[in-house]
Parts: sequence; structure tokens; C-alpha cells
Amino acid sequence: MKIIKKTNLIVNYGVFYLNQDRDIVVIGCGAGGGTSAQFARKTNRKSSVTVFEKNKYPQYSKCGLPYVISGVIRDPMDLIEFSQDWFKKAKIDLLLNTTVEEIDVENQLVVGKKDNVTVKKSYGSLVIATGAQPTIPPIQNLTIDGRFVDGVFAVRTIDDVKNILPFVQKNKRATIIGAGFIGLEMADALYKRGMLVTVVEALSHILPRTFDSDMAEIVQGKLPGDVTVFTNYLATKVENISGRINKVRIKNNENGDEKTIDTDLLIIATGVKPEVALAREAGCKIGETGGIVVNERAETNIENIYAVGDCTEYVDFVTKKPVPVGLGSIAVRQGIAAGVNAAGGNYKLLRGVLQTSTSEFFNIEVAAVGPVTNCLNDFSILTGKFNGFSHPSYYPGGKPVTAKVLVDEKTSKILGAQVVGDKAGQRINTFACAILSELDVETFKKLETAYAPSIAPTLDVVTLVCDIVSKKLEYKN
Amino acid sequence: MKIIKKTNLIVNYGVFYLNQDRDIVVIGCGAGGGTSAQFARKTNRKSSVTVFEKNKYPQYSKCGLPYVISGVIRDPMDLIEFSQDWFKKAKIDLLLNTTVEEIDVENQLVVGKKDNVTVKKSYGSLVIATGAQPTIPPIQNLTIDGRFVDGVFAVRTIDDVKNILPFVQKNKRATIIGAGFIGLEMADALYKRGMLVTVVEALSHILPRTFDSDMAEIVQGKLPGDVTVFTNYLATKVENISGRINKVRIKNNENGDEKTIDTDLLIIATGVKPEVALAREAGCKIGETGGIVVNERAETNIENIYAVGDCTEYVDFVTKKPVPVGLGSIAVRQGIAAGVNAAGGNYKLLRGVLQTSTSEFFNIEVAAVGPVTNCLNDFSILTGKFNGFSHPSYYPGGKPVTAKVLVDEKTSKILGAQVVGDKAGQRINTFACAILSELDVETFKKLETAYAPSIAPTLDVVTLVCDIVSKKLEYKN
Repeated sequence: MKIIKKTNLIVNYGVFYLNQDRDIVVIGCGAGGGTSAQFARKTNRKSSVTVFEKNKYPQYSKCGLPYVISGVIRDPMDLIEFSQDWFKKAKIDLLLNTTVEEIDVENQLVVGKKDNVTVKKSYGSLVIATGAQPTIPPIQNLTIDGRFVDGVFAVRTIDDVKNILPFVQKNKRATIIGAGFIGLEMADALYKRGMLVTVVEALSHILPRTFDSDMAEIVQGKLPGDVTVFTNYLATKVENISGRINKVRIKNNENGDEKTIDTDLLIIATGVKPEVALAREAGCKIGETGGIVVNERAETNIENIYAVGDCTEYVDFVTKKPVPVGLGSIAVRQGIAAGVNAAGGNYKLLRGVLQTSTSEFFNIEVAAVGPVTNCLNDFSILTGKFNGFSHPSYYPGGKPVTAKVLVDEKTSKILGAQVVGDKAGQRINTFACAILSELDVETFKKLETAYAPSIAPTLDVVTLVCDIVSKKLEYKN
Repeated sequence: MKIIKKTNLIVNYGVFYLNQDRDIVVIGCGAGGGTSAQFARKTNRKSSVTVFEKNKYPQYSKCGLPYVISGVIRDPMDLIEFSQDWFKKAKIDLLLNTTVEEIDVENQLVVGKKDNVTVKKSYGSLVIATGAQPTIPPIQNLTIDGRFVDGVFAVRTIDDVKNILPFVQKNKRATIIGAGFIGLEMADALYKRGMLVTVVEALSHILPRTFDSDMAEIVQGKLPGDVTVFTNYLATKVENISGRINKVRIKNNENGDEKTIDTDLLIIATGVKPEVALAREAGCKIGETGGIVVNERAETNIENIYAVGDCTEYVDFVTKKPVPVGLGSIAVRQGIAAGVNAAGGNYKLLRGVLQTSTSEFFNIEVAAVGPVTNCLNDFSILTGKFNGFSHPSYYPGGKPVTAKVLVDEKTSKILGAQVVGDKAGQRINTFACAILSELDVETFKKLETAYAPSIAPTLDVVTLVCDIVSKKLEYKN
């Protein structure tokens, strides 16, 4: 078994090595596209594999961008996971700065342009991995001549980060619009660099897509006192001096209260919208969330066309409803499927996404899996919440961990979980496995977790929180 | 929901609160006995609950003893998890220094002795939690007049630790017999105190009950260079000067090679044997591993008599064969069952023990679940091993993690796993959940684990290691 040490990806994933030739083309070299190309290459050593990438960088980690701002990662170029040279050695043709203008489905051709030169490439299999663009909220005066006012940025690309860095200055003010993972990671990064940080969230609590309000409140309570957070506030207008931002106006959703925040830097972190123009023109079905509809094999509705990553939507494992694919971890898994299948193999994804996610900011580790309560309206759910510790009481240095679990009252199955605190990310994986296994809470609460004084208590919060729901179930029945 | 903050145990576990009175007696106030008493009290508020404990300390953590030696825990008394006062407040009669001499099954009486005074207590339900005693290997001259030579100790009680502490001295030599968790935790503790440490293991690799030899080698390779480890060596003889140990002689199992180790302190950490004399006399069935046989309700073969903890054996979840109960985590879970059931409730344990375990020594975190390869002779197994990292390659400070997984070739089910490195304890819980769910490796390898640059890579070692077995399965089929 050969292993690419650089990323922990296993090279020889499929074992087929078909003899048939089949030109494989991938549009986009993000996590999903790059992974597709890799796995296509491993699966079929005879096919050509070509990747079109409109920007100038080969595959890099978007999730790592905030850590370049914080200085934890020194050079934005360190985010590149697979260099152009790596692709060359892997015998994958990576065409950078090459924009695809059309997918000619009838002739199975991808038509692109590089430096005004038209590039055509026929495909046997095509993987669309066009990603997503930041959503820009309707803020007055945000742009001048179609470009952001100086000091206003989204955080989506290496170039964004390169452009932000000169604005990062101690004791200057930064405002972040959006309190999801990226927003809070950026808040932490700018805070670490000595900036005075304000976070503005339009919804009623931070981390609205990942956490229920009660858990989000716990997280918010752990933020440093000098980080200002406004929830239920929309940014309405920016002001500038000589084209450079100096204020942002925000307005309360509920009571109309308005505030003006002095700011030298404004970060837009209000999510993304899938980039599906090419796919739509090609005839790919676009789903209700705005992403390309794909199945377990990462196939679109068009034969030989696959799609992966942020430009797609897929079914949620629990609700069975489509959700946007917005996590790098899912993009990579879809990339494995699309790559193997595009090359003639057969790889099926799980029948839905668990949406396992984690983040860390201000030394607070958070993680979640499954839908939040607001997305479980079709279920009658019982929830439990437990405040525990990372270690037995007698062992010094124990850290708080709070877990919440969402359980289907009818079936007793675990539907979701949220964790704040010590090793939240690894703790949530245990819940993810429980959801994947459709385990009921009565069984899971008895899970024999690992115990040692220096590692974890005899009964871990992951099962103790289930006892609470179990008790509620007993009362109900 | 009332919570005892001190230990994370939920107080109101059962919801029955029976009106019937039933005297509940528990013999032994370790983790299993103490938990039984607690849960009996919570389940039935009208019964009397009495605990007989032959030693002078109320419930304390045996697993914490090495950390008193290392100095991480300052005072051995800090290990006490529930004080005599706590038991009093909980309305549990805790009789310390009281040795039970007989269980009179016919008359449902426990007969004990405290300070030569006979104590009799009738029981409606009885929980036997008599624990285990250290096994003492047949080492010549280990004892004088039935007592250990000065400087020779087991590590089982607070008194052991109090007696060891005066022998802990910088630059002096310590030898540990047995390289299981306790042995290596003690080695680490004494090393931290500046002692020169030698570990002697009779079997062919360290951690023989928890780890396969290949994984144990990885652990051994991470030990500090100045910790000496002899595997395949039996201690045969000690020498003393004026009754105080100064040498231990060891002999190679295979080639008969003999060595003499200068030592000022000898720690015996070669496991335990269940303390079953009382239970046997009472007619309780003793199983093939030497422990009291108990079922899912923690019942022995005698009506109204339960048994929990190190004095029992229970069925392994995977092999369905009896195994000694040697983990505090299992004792506590049995204690819940015995306590609830002794009080008239109905609580069933999982149908077997997963043997999830973890430890940390010399800054190496290790964890395992399920049987080791040597205990899976009835299965045809495939294994995978993967060396990965805790973080994506571009994120600084990534730590190595190695995982091994054991899979049933016939059913593809995960049977066991072993992890060395970053967050091994929490990582193993995900495998524990997979085993509990009887998940096959093809499904588990697709588990969507939590990813964030500062937390974990897009594909975690827990699933990457499964890809390797999955590939082996493909070749086979």
C-alpha cells in the first residue's frame, strides 16, 4: 500500500486498473475536483486526466485561510496541498488560469480559454467541481464601480487573504459579518493579531447552521469579553473616506435599533452560493438549495457527468432532504466517488451526509453532527444536555465539555449532537458513528467509552448526555 | 435532573422509586461496589443501603494511584471520590474497617467483623464487589516471613502508594515487573521523579493484553531512550541487604539468558486475581477465568445476589467468551446495573464487554477496543494499519497517530482496534461505537469524520485505516 504522506490519502483506492481508455476531465481544482482527479488517476492508469482551473493556484485548502491571517500558517503558499509539480508527477494535466466557457454535452467536449486561446478537450467522463462564491449581503455602498470599497473582503481564496493582510494592524478595528465557523475563525485570527473585533450575525444566535441557540449561547459565553457580538443585526450600509471603509451601520432585525460601528476592515462571511452556471447550461439538474443534484455515485442527471463539492447538493442522512454541500470533508468524499466512478470503477457514498463538522476559535473547540433542532420539524424530538468534564474530578486540569443530543422520540434513534469543549471534534465522531449506525439512545448510552485518569472520566459526556434523554423517554412511555 | 458534579454521575438514574422496602447490602466499596450502592439508593429511596468495606478508606480511584507517585496528584487522599460524609448524606451506611466473614445465603445475612465485634446485616439484595488482589509472580526471596522484602510493592491501594513514596528518590533505581497499563504508568511516574527505570515483561511485547505486537513495538519505540525494557524476561530472584532489596535477577524465557539488575525499588504490576472466596463459599458460580459469573443484569447464579467489578467475569462482546472484568469503566457500568436491579429496577448491560481502554505514559496516548489478534483464533481476520497525522499537513504541530483495525474476513465487521498517538482515547470510542453497532468496515470507512485544520484532517486515521482492510477484502473477493 503506497501512501502519499503529504495528505494521508491512500493512493491505490480502487483495485480495478481498467484497460479501457477514457478521457477524464475535471473542472475546478479545489478539494472536490483535485480529489476526483487523483482518484481517477489511481483507478485508471491508462486514461488521460485533465483538470481545468480558472485561478492561478493548484489545489489548496480554503479552510486554512483564517490561519494565514492569524499567523499560525506563515505563508499563504503553505496552503497548497498538491503542487503543479505533484500533478505532473501523477500524470494529471493541470491547466491553471484556464476558464471553462462551455460544456458541449453532445460532442462530449469541454471548451475553455487560457490567455484568449481556446482550449478544447474531449471527455469520456466529466467531473464538475466549480465550487461556490461568497454570498454578498445587500449592504448599501459596499461597492464602488462593482468592486468592494477598500477594506472590505470575503475570505474565499488565497488572493483574498493576500489582500486582507495589509489591512491587519494592531489596535485597528475589524468587523466580521456572519458568525458561522469562518466568521468566528476570522474573528479569532484578527483578535490574535491585536485588532478590536466586532461580529455581526443576522440570525438570533451565533453558529446558526451548526448549533441550537442554547449551545450557541454557551459558546458565546466563552468568547473573550472584549470581542463584541451583535446577534439579530443586519449590516445595512458602509461609509468610506476616500474609498476606504471607516464605518458600518447595522440594524436590529426585531426592534429596528440602529448602530454605527467604526471599522477599518470588514470581512464578509455570510456563506456561499454554489457556482452552477456551466452545469445548468449543460443541462444538469439544479436542486432546491441551488446546488447540482447528485446521487450516491456523485453522478448528475447527465450520463458521464459527475459533480462534487460546494457546487452540489446532496441528501441529509437524517432528514433525507437535500442540503448544500458546504464542507471540505464531504467534497473530498464525493471526490473519491466521482474520481473512481469517472474512471470506470464503482464507489458509492453513504446515502446521505451526516454534516459532521468542527472548528476552534478563541481556544473553544466546537463540533456538531446531524441537523440542528430547527431542521428537524418533521420529527418529534427529545433533547438532553450535559455539562461534564474532560477528566475525573480528582485529576487536575479537567476542562469543561458540554454535549447536547437530539433523539427521535418515536424510534429512540440519535439524530444529531453538538459538543462544546475538550476534544469536541473527536467526541462528535462517536456520535457520527451512532447516527450512521442508526443506533438508539438506549444502546448508545451504554457504550463502554475509554477511561483513564489522564484521558477521560469513567463515564464520558457522550454517554452521560444520553442518560438524560433516556430518562425523558422513560417518563414518556 | 440532579447531577453530582464531583463525578459526573447522574443521580436519578432509575425512575421507579419503589415503595417496597428491601435491605440492600454491598460488600466492597471500590468503583463497582460504591456505584452499586449509589444507584441502589437512587432507585429505591425507602430501602436501607449498607456497604461493608474491609479497608479504612471510602470509595477512591485505584486508577489514579500512579499519579500520586508522579506528583500530578498531590495527596493520596485526593483520590477519594466519595467521602464517608458523602455516603452519610446519601443515606448509605458505609461500614469501614469491616471484614465480611460469611454470606449466609439461607438466612440472607451478611456476617462481618469490625474490631473483633461481629456485625450482622440481613439483605433482600446483596452485591458482591470484593475486587481483586495483585498476582504475585513466583520470585525467589521476594518475601521474608510472609512479607515483601523492603522496597518491593504492588500498586493496588492508597496504602501501597503511601508506602512506596518514601522509596522514590532521584537517581535511584526502580524496576517494574509487568508492562501493562499500570506497569508503564508507574514507570512514567517514577521516571518523572528522576528515578532510573527498568521494565521487565514476561511476554514477548509490552501491553500484551491490549495491543498486538506490531502496535506495541510502535509504543516501545516512543519510550525515552534511558528507560530500559526487557521483554520475554521473567524475574526469578531478588537479593537484599539487611532486608532491603538491592538486586533483581531476570531470565529470558526463550534463550535462558540471565541478567542482574541493581534496584532500590521493585514494583509488581503483573495483574490481579479476582477475590472470590466469599462468593464461592456462598455458592456463586466461579467461571473459567476465575471470576464470579454474572449476567446482563449483573446477577450471579444465586437469587438476589449480584456481583460487579474485578471479582467478576463477563462475556466479551466480540468473542462471546468470558473475560475477566479488569477495567474501572466496566465496574462502574456493572455497578449501575447491580444497584438498579438490587433495588428492584431493571437495567440490562450490553451483551458483552467491548474492553475499551486507554492510558497515557511518557506523553504517549494509547487506546484499544475489542480483543487483540491472539484472542481471535476462532475468526479469520484481516488487519490494516495506518500511520497518519492529527492535523492536515499544512497545519503546524501535527502529531503522529497510528491506528490498527481488526476485521472479520467473513462478515467484514470490525472486531477490534488499537490506536497510538494524538487523542487515541477519543478516537477509540468511535471504533467502540462501530463494534457495538456491528458495523462493517465498508460502511465505517465512509464515516464522515469532523474536519478542521486545527482539529483533524479531512480523512481521519480512524477511517483511513479501514480503507486498507477494505482493499484487502476486495483482493480476497
